[in-house]
Amino acid sequence: MLPAAFIETLLDHIPADRAFTDPVDCYAYAYDNSRKIFPPECVIFPLTTDEVVQVIRLCMRFNLPVTPRGRGTGTAGGSLPEQGGIALSLERMTQVRSVDAANRVMIVEPGVLNEAVQAAAKPHGFFWPPDPSSAGYSSVGGNLATSAGGPHAVKYGTTRDHVLGVTAVTGTGEIIQTGCYTTKGVVGYDLTRLLIGSEGTLAVITEATLKLTPLPAAKGGLTAHYRDPASCAQAIVAIMQASRGPSALEFLDAGSLDLIRSKHPEMLPADSSAMLMIEVDGSEHEIAETVTNLLAACQNPGLLHAAATQNLDDLWQARKQLSPLLRDIAPKKINEDIVVPVDKIPVLLAGLSRLSQQYALANVNFGHAGNGNIHVNLLVDPDIDSERAEKCLNDIFDLVISLNGTLSGEHGIGSEKRAYIEKEISTATLAIMKGIKQVFDPNHILNPGKLFP
Amino acid sequence: MLPAAFIETLLDHIPADRAFTDPVDCYAYAYDNSRKIFPPECVIFPLTTDEVVQVIRLCMRFNLPVTPRGRGTGTAGGSLPEQGGIALSLERMTQVRSVDAANRVMIVEPGVLNEAVQAAAKPHGFFWPPDPSSAGYSSVGGNLATSAGGPHAVKYGTTRDHVLGVTAVTGTGEIIQTGCYTTKGVVGYDLTRLLIGSEGTLAVITEATLKLTPLPAAKGGLTAHYRDPASCAQAIVAIMQASRGPSALEFLDAGSLDLIRSKHPEMLPADSSAMLMIEVDGSEHEIAETVTNLLAACQNPGLLHAAATQNLDDLWQARKQLSPLLRDIAPKKINEDIVVPVDKIPVLLAGLSRLSQQYALANVNFGHAGNGNIHVNLLVDPDIDSERAEKCLNDIFDLVISLNGTLSGEHGIGSEKRAYIEKEISTATLAIMKGIKQVFDPNHILNPGKLFP
Repeated sequence: MLPAAFIETLLDHIPADRAFTDPVDCYAYAYDNSRKIFPPECVIFPLTTDEVVQVIRLCMRFNLPVTPRGRGTGTAGGSLPEQGGIALSLERMTQVRSVDAANRVMIVEPGVLNEAVQAAAKPHGFFWPPDPSSAGYSSVGGNLATSAGGPHAVKYGTTRDHVLGVTAVTGTGEIIQTGCYTTKGVVGYDLTRLLIGSEGTLAVITEATLKLTPLPAAKGGLTAHYRDPASCAQAIVAIMQASRGPSALEFLDAGSLDLIRSKHPEMLPADSSAMLMIEVDGSEHEIAETVTNLLAACQNPGLLHAAATQNLDDLWQARKQLSPLLRDIAPKKINEDIVVPVDKIPVLLAGLSRLSQQYALANVNFGHAGNGNIHVNLLVDPDIDSERAEKCLNDIFDLVISLNGTLSGEHGIGSEKRAYIEKEISTATLAIMKGIKQVFDPNHILNPGKLFP
Repeated sequence: MLPAAFIETLLDHIPADRAFTDPVDCYAYAYDNSRKIFPPECVIFPLTTDEVVQVIRLCMRFNLPVTPRGRGTGTAGGSLPEQGGIALSLERMTQVRSVDAANRVMIVEPGVLNEAVQAAAKPHGFFWPPDPSSAGYSSVGGNLATSAGGPHAVKYGTTRDHVLGVTAVTGTGEIIQTGCYTTKGVVGYDLTRLLIGSEGTLAVITEATLKLTPLPAAKGGLTAHYRDPASCAQAIVAIMQASRGPSALEFLDAGSLDLIRSKHPEMLPADSSAMLMIEVDGSEHEIAETVTNLLAACQNPGLLHAAATQNLDDLWQARKQLSPLLRDIAPKKINEDIVVPVDKIPVLLAGLSRLSQQYALANVNFGHAGNGNIHVNLLVDPDIDSERAEKCLNDIFDLVISLNGTLSGEHGIGSEKRAYIEKEISTATLAIMKGIKQVFDPNHILNPGKLFP
């Protein structure tokens, strides 16, 4: 129960229609895409940086946890108020403050949707490269909190490559400004990228200065089908060595292809065991040239066939079937987003296949091959098979680390992976991270318990 | 004077030929390109991470300052042992540990020269984009310490965009590993980019995992001359909006052009008041197309003439004359590397011209226009005109901040700009940075006194 004095003082700063305390209202802020449920005791909707300061100071005074929240599309539980207290929803801070086309900079509040950023940039001939599949309904603040990526990261990088600076409020209610307004700047420590991907554990971002990128003139695509994952991975390596690479390079394994075939037998060639969907962008000339080069890079003895696609919708058609099909057959599937070096993809896939047999758990794997970022889907109901799923997951993570990979490419740690973080991060390195947490949030009120084991 | 017990214990870990204590030997490590002189009492040349650990633990025990040093090419005094103690020279850690072409990754020790990185990457069809003008004799460790950039940053970004992770030793002698081996990764806080640009004040980098980029197939160039800086800046903005931009976009102001004309009257058109040197890269097709597009972007009423250049050496010829000419006329010139938003370049130049008159100090300005990163050269002997130079510099920095710019784009703060850092970084933000310093180096032995006011 929240102290009555907290609510009373809160209402001096925030009007009642922007502070929910009714459990029914609060429940809508209890979950995210991790499917865990932790209801907050109060949901607050600030409109300004100063209101965020007031809320945090108040939480500090009453020693209440504050969990910042974008649009709750994360899959790692990062935005869940696990220890109760306050859900600080930034969703009403939706102003695009400025679009400065001359300098390729946009300033936005954290609640602006990724899609709204793109809409504001497009008339000026720009876009903002981070493109998580949730772009239509995830917010910039959430994109920053996880350093969100997506298919185009292979060419353009992830969120941390496209933010010049932020305004943020620390766990003691101090306003800090990080970074600068220009594309170069080396004054002081890089706090911008320290905050990006910190999952709301260090500070609440209340404004972001985004770096925009010119829209490509056009896009083209090609697909390639392989006899086996090893020859497919060989092609991925060759593609990534081309002097002009792809703007997206997505991979589907045999399990993914079988799943699509089960519903759409006509969509895919019967003999394919591994598929690449490749997008290129640039001028019409460049696209023609790049498609030719990448088709050449696709050639190896394991290639069944490769061809350019005229229609980009065709290119992505198979990929788009996957998520609904996966939900149909395994509504509570475990979706991981591990990363391995590109040339380790075949070893990873062989290992996943072995673990699938060992634990009698089907898996389906696809993802952003150019970055080695593979979505491993365990087709399991964790409510029934929790112990088996956990052991399998543990072995998958061990495999990934043994291949010099990382536990998460874009989803983050949140609560879902904190038990595993010590597989990847050494004790001494983790101690430094905890020390940094202490500097930003000495009372441990900001998203407490997240990220650390 | 160093305690005898320190030297004695040191020699248990480091052989005498890798530990200089003779003042004559130490003097070669007293200076950098800032032209200040601070002799260390001892220069140590570790060969391994473990040796760095031993040295730092020993310095901690004896409470001695340790200043890490690459090749001493910095201009901000970052590598000078201002408070005496130990110069920790990484210059003998020169191993290229691995070149992994399949994954586009190279692991190097910090003493490897930038040029040596390029040489090791080239046979595999790759390069490492950071290209400071010191590339031939500056080390990767130094490039990381300052997040070095150069002319190609306009397309490829600076050092912080091209490092996947590091091994480093903190001020308490703990070894930490940051980042990962893959191009995506969001596990824990981004300590990699926190260390990049931290000028040796947080930890000593002993190994770096570099992200490589495919070499462009070819390069082309063009030059454009303008009647006045405003029309030139207008062209810069137009060029930066092209969907395929330049790989370098360098600007020379009227003072720079006059200086070149004074020695090489035939090299430049007599009527030009501002010049752009533009490089493009890609396939031959792309280059032709991009040159056409950028020539169109150069058009405006202030354009005198613009033309493609067949020979890239011709393109850079004028630019290369500048530094030696500047050294001739003002050997102790003050060279700043401020940054303003691209569309503020004309206002900046007008302001610099005004300040030049006000303080009767000539200035010459040129630099990386696509990033708004202008090298402001005050043609002054600071030994004679120190007070006037200091006042002028102070006004220049105020002007830069008023234009939403930053005090340094690639040189860093070191000791040269620490008196000015509070113009740009707020007290609360600086307090967080100091807190982070405390976490990495609680005894303040790593490069003490640098960066902070």
